[in-house]
Amino acid sequence: MATRTRIGILGASGYTGAELLRILLTHPRADVVLLTADRKANREMREIYPQFSPYPLPALVTIESVDWMAAGVDFVFCALPHGTTQTVIKRLMGEAPAIRVVDLSADFRLCDVDAYARWYGHDHLAPDLQGQAVYGLVEVYRRDIKQAHLVANPGCYTTCAELPLIPLIKNRAIDTDEIVIDAKSGMTGAGRSAREAMIFSEVSEGFHAYGVGHHRHMAELDQEFSRAAGKPVTVSFTPHLLPINRGILSTIYVRGRRGRTAEDLHALLVKAYAKEPFVHVLPFGETPQTRHVRGSNMTVIGVVADRLAGRAIIVSALDNLTKGASGQAVQNMNVMLGFPETLGLTQVAMFP
Amino acid sequence: MATRTRIGILGASGYTGAELLRILLTHPRADVVLLTADRKANREMREIYPQFSPYPLPALVTIESVDWMAAGVDFVFCALPHGTTQTVIKRLMGEAPAIRVVDLSADFRLCDVDAYARWYGHDHLAPDLQGQAVYGLVEVYRRDIKQAHLVANPGCYTTCAELPLIPLIKNRAIDTDEIVIDAKSGMTGAGRSAREAMIFSEVSEGFHAYGVGHHRHMAELDQEFSRAAGKPVTVSFTPHLLPINRGILSTIYVRGRRGRTAEDLHALLVKAYAKEPFVHVLPFGETPQTRHVRGSNMTVIGVVADRLAGRAIIVSALDNLTKGASGQAVQNMNVMLGFPETLGLTQVAMFP
Amino acid sequence: MATRTRIGILGASGYTGAELLRILLTHPRADVVLLTADRKANREMREIYPQFSPYPLPALVTIESVDWMAAGVDFVFCALPHGTTQTVIKRLMGEAPAIRVVDLSADFRLCDVDAYARWYGHDHLAPDLQGQAVYGLVEVYRRDIKQAHLVANPGCYTTCAELPLIPLIKNRAIDTDEIVIDAKSGMTGAGRSAREAMIFSEVSEGFHAYGVGHHRHMAELDQEFSRAAGKPVTVSFTPHLLPINRGILSTIYVRGRRGRTAEDLHALLVKAYAKEPFVHVLPFGETPQTRHVRGSNMTVIGVVADRLAGRAIIVSALDNLTKGASGQAVQNMNVMLGFPETLGLTQVAMFP
Amino acid sequence: MATRTRIGILGASGYTGAELLRILLTHPRADVVLLTADRKANREMREIYPQFSPYPLPALVTIESVDWMAAGVDFVFCALPHGTTQTVIKRLMGEAPAIRVVDLSADFRLCDVDAYARWYGHDHLAPDLQGQAVYGLVEVYRRDIKQAHLVANPGCYTTCAELPLIPLIKNRAIDTDEIVIDAKSGMTGAGRSAREAMIFSEVSEGFHAYGVGHHRHMAELDQEFSRAAGKPVTVSFTPHLLPINRGILSTIYVRGRRGRTAEDLHALLVKAYAKEPFVHVLPFGETPQTRHVRGSNMTVIGVVADRLAGRAIIVSALDNLTKGASGQAVQNMNVMLGFPETLGLTQVAMFP
Repeated sequence: MATRTRIGILGASGYTGAELLRILLTHPRADVVLLTADRKANREMREIYPQFSPYPLPALVTIESVDWMAAGVDFVFCALPHGTTQTVIKRLMGEAPAIRVVDLSADFRLCDVDAYARWYGHDHLAPDLQGQAVYGLVEVYRRDIKQAHLVANPGCYTTCAELPLIPLIKNRAIDTDEIVIDAKSGMTGAGRSAREAMIFSEVSEGFHAYGVGHHRHMAELDQEFSRAAGKPVTVSFTPHLLPINRGILSTIYVRGRRGRTAEDLHALLVKAYAKEPFVHVLPFGETPQTRHVRGSNMTVIGVVADRLAGRAIIVSALDNLTKGASGQAVQNMNVMLGFPETLGLTQVAMFP
Repeated sequence: MATRTRIGILGASGYTGAELLRILLTHPRADVVLLTADRKANREMREIYPQFSPYPLPALVTIESVDWMAAGVDFVFCALPHGTTQTVIKRLMGEAPAIRVVDLSADFRLCDVDAYARWYGHDHLAPDLQGQAVYGLVEVYRRDIKQAHLVANPGCYTTCAELPLIPLIKNRAIDTDEIVIDAKSGMTGAGRSAREAMIFSEVSEGFHAYGVGHHRHMAELDQEFSRAAGKPVTVSFTPHLLPINRGILSTIYVRGRRGRTAEDLHALLVKAYAKEPFVHVLPFGETPQTRHVRGSNMTVIGVVADRLAGRAIIVSALDNLTKGASGQAVQNMNVMLGFPETLGLTQVAMFP
Repeated sequence: MATRTRIGILGASGYTGAELLRILLTHPRADVVLLTADRKANREMREIYPQFSPYPLPALVTIESVDWMAAGVDFVFCALPHGTTQTVIKRLMGEAPAIRVVDLSADFRLCDVDAYARWYGHDHLAPDLQGQAVYGLVEVYRRDIKQAHLVANPGCYTTCAELPLIPLIKNRAIDTDEIVIDAKSGMTGAGRSAREAMIFSEVSEGFHAYGVGHHRHMAELDQEFSRAAGKPVTVSFTPHLLPINRGILSTIYVRGRRGRTAEDLHALLVKAYAKEPFVHVLPFGETPQTRHVRGSNMTVIGVVADRLAGRAIIVSALDNLTKGASGQAVQNMNVMLGFPETLGLTQVAMFP
Repeated sequence: MATRTRIGILGASGYTGAELLRILLTHPRADVVLLTADRKANREMREIYPQFSPYPLPALVTIESVDWMAAGVDFVFCALPHGTTQTVIKRLMGEAPAIRVVDLSADFRLCDVDAYARWYGHDHLAPDLQGQAVYGLVEVYRRDIKQAHLVANPGCYTTCAELPLIPLIKNRAIDTDEIVIDAKSGMTGAGRSAREAMIFSEVSEGFHAYGVGHHRHMAELDQEFSRAAGKPVTVSFTPHLLPINRGILSTIYVRGRRGRTAEDLHALLVKAYAKEPFVHVLPFGETPQTRHVRGSNMTVIGVVADRLAGRAIIVSALDNLTKGASGQAVQNMNVMLGFPETLGLTQVAMFP
């Protein structure tokens, strides 16, 4: 019988922590043996998330209390808030170099520690580790991820924009100087730490843009699009908040290069993702809905001709907690450990 | 390797049809080989429910076009609207007596065909079959279900009220002459056939009771509570419509018999469901939320002492599409076919 | 031309403060001249609630900074959190006895300061003022309110239950020993101070009961029902949280006394509220929806016969921020100042 | 005392009909004396919209049954579905030329009857009347509207895009060859005629684009932007469906012409709308939310610098039923009848 991997989840009380657990509890090769949650330490997971009541799970502990050599952990998912992660992973990888890590925060996503300092307002606290970190967009960096010890799981907004755009940019199929990404996300992307703007009555029955002109996800987009283009690329990106729990939909406005039509762009994406289990390109002219990826690890992409000649509209959708966070993290783990990439990730989207 | 059962879903374009498919696509012993949808015949499932795009599935056909002897089907889920089902199943079981059936409609739930005629306003169209039908509340009728050829899957409201109340009534622990069930359901319980009252703007940002004083689920409650009591029982039942997709929560007001306290009632339920995989009784004083059963086959029950002496408040919650319909239907199939009862039904509730 | 009343709103940054302002900005006899919000002092109202951008309004100040004699205020609405109100009003009424006050908190609702201490866990801080406070349920205490200097505006849940029940209890038309009130409220009832349980993702797409068996509104219900009955009355009351912003709906289960039928109870309510502008009794057998009172000061009541002989189901609905709080507060002001009772309160419910 | 205008609403059972009534019931110069609703004729408005129960209103009649000369009507709002309107208004204006009309449908919005035929797939049925019709965007055509007998009330999406863009185009401040309008609307924009795609469970907890590449509102945008530019202008426009009732938010991507910065564009809009009561331009860098215009007749506009040099992001928000339909219709009536333009339209946005 196949051996099972012993897994630790750091930050299990947040939404991405709960989503990791939801996925891993039915993963055939994973045993969750460690759960941390600093502010909720010494409590049971069922008190924090009653849906886990029927499952026997380890009690929550603080990260500080973990002795990594003695913890009996093979693999760690780090689902901590941005900022605290660098220190935690530095200690972990220092004490127990055999443990492999997928980090769901933004702490290791930017290769350039100077860019990190510029966007996040403070120095990177583990610049040496940054050099080892692999950006975990499986469809692009699968080969590197296999060997990686530390994978930086991409952001939710960025995954939703990078999957449709990177193949187009790499193939020089679109102009890179005027890409407009109008992105809309559900509320779980904001996490579980209460602030006034997150109250139900401030979010339901309404809609708004935020971070217009300046949003940290831009740094990650710049990096990946510039890598794909082989030259600096800056895009226009505007996030909006949807009164829903799960789902990101990005409407992307592009111009084909050298006469490429919307159909050409579509054909290129169809080809690029023909064998990918978690990217589905719709027939030309169709566009996706977030509800049809709810709870699944799928990204769905549609391409339509714009009425402005030479331009195309690309719409992509994913579940920000699954492919946009915890599902992609498990996909990364599967690749790192040599498991079939879809293991534990076959759940069908839940609609209605 | 274990053989797989070839399954047909009649009425695949409705919500319970889609939920059956969501569950069965990851069920290790089931192959869906037949899908019917009369008004949407000759279309692909992916056009009706885009979330199934990644899966190879048979095209939709009309029921009339099915030759049951040649269909290669072992097992049928019938997810048709109330009323048309009796005729369809009569033909099916007449033509292909080996096929076993779980019917999700109300057509075979009432043992008494006179009661059926009274509540539904027309004669039962298959009274002989009614005699063979077993009421599919697994936790109560497991033994009969094993042998059954035709199982009448219970209603969503009724499952949510019967699971907490039947053990209390059977044990003569509560007064049966003044049980008040205040029930609230999400919109998917109303199905997918559009009516003005189902429009988003008529349902969101509001709440109301409906069918006050008269609702067809009462006939089913009367039947099961009277069976459990061994004498006629009539309860007060008021359904309300929640602006959510999935979930039923019932708040039930009862009085303990002969000095039974709320704690006594709780202890009785804990004992009754100690070994049931799909009924979870919370610690005394705690009550469930619908969101913690979303997409799972679990029913969660809580018991609290009322401030009125001698009375208790019982709160039960389930997902109306899963334990309240398609999940329970698969649970019935597992029992009928001798599979482990939880096969394909281990999905953890999706929250948030 | 009629003189205008100069109004102060204490706690203008909360939801009931904003609702007061929404109503008063179109009230023909009111000028809002003072707005306080301790944590948001020195900011403009438009920063806190952008919908007020088009209106010239005084900047927010701290309560402490207000010199009541010099403030130029005739009338004060106190929309502060429970607990801090007693001290604030004590100082205000001490320094400027001419100012009349409607308090929207629970601080002055319980006549019995011992009951207050029991339910709130600390001594009443202004027991002498409590003696002067009038309970502001206009339909019941209109005469006293006219003379009052300090009116305790009723709670939202309590208003919704008291309006249908008090006439029935006063007329000895129902049994008072087994009244069951199953109440459901929108989120704005919880105010604007962020807590984890109030986050959008914790509230949307789900439903649950809370405070089962013990909720502070019970003290207020006990007081008013006992007054109406002329003897102690205790009711069963269970609040639930709806994933909507505005609206309370109460489903109330009662038994007619001495052969009173549901029709008798209905007739009694029709008569009791025939001339009331803000209570509307539906034709027998019809029940209300919260959406049809959204933003209006109306309470709508329906009565239906229960299928249990001798019992009736009463459903009442109101907007918790309007008739359940700020609308009722302005109605109280109108009565206190001798204005027409409906002045500024004629807005039609906003549906859809 | 000022005389009151006797008003008829054709199509009173739709959402824009109900919104007209909500506004007109508190309008000081309007009496609603005629309500039509073909499919719901002979019923009372309170059965269709219970929120109007407290108001005495004429019963619903069919349009066919109305004798326009004898109807005692001075002014008509036509809130009928697109397509049937041309015939209805032709008869009305033929029989009773003194009655003035605001039409809320798209039937008279396109000056060019050939463009109408092209976009709507059939010939215009009242081409002579089209010549008299004035496009009712008050902020642009106020002078013409004063004299008009027939005003074509603008669409909701178009109003939200035209108000921010027309001043910029007129002043040649932006490039007109690559304007991208990413628009998001609440569900009430789809009306009250039930279709599967409008069911609560198909709309809630999700988001999608629709009509990508081709939407009828484009014809109206083309017309108005071309008029403003004095040359043909075609824009990119993508509508999306929000799971909310009311509200449209448009995120508009533009490039400044000849070195105009985002600040320049902002200054231009501030100046253009300085005296308009229903257009509010936020301070530079701020953007609006739909919830802060809910139920009000206000359009709120924000301008932000894009990170792409030379480009700006403009966000505009309005309530699709109010400024996007019925509020704007009443604003048009006020102008046509010489009333103060804000009469009956002063209601403050309802948030929360």
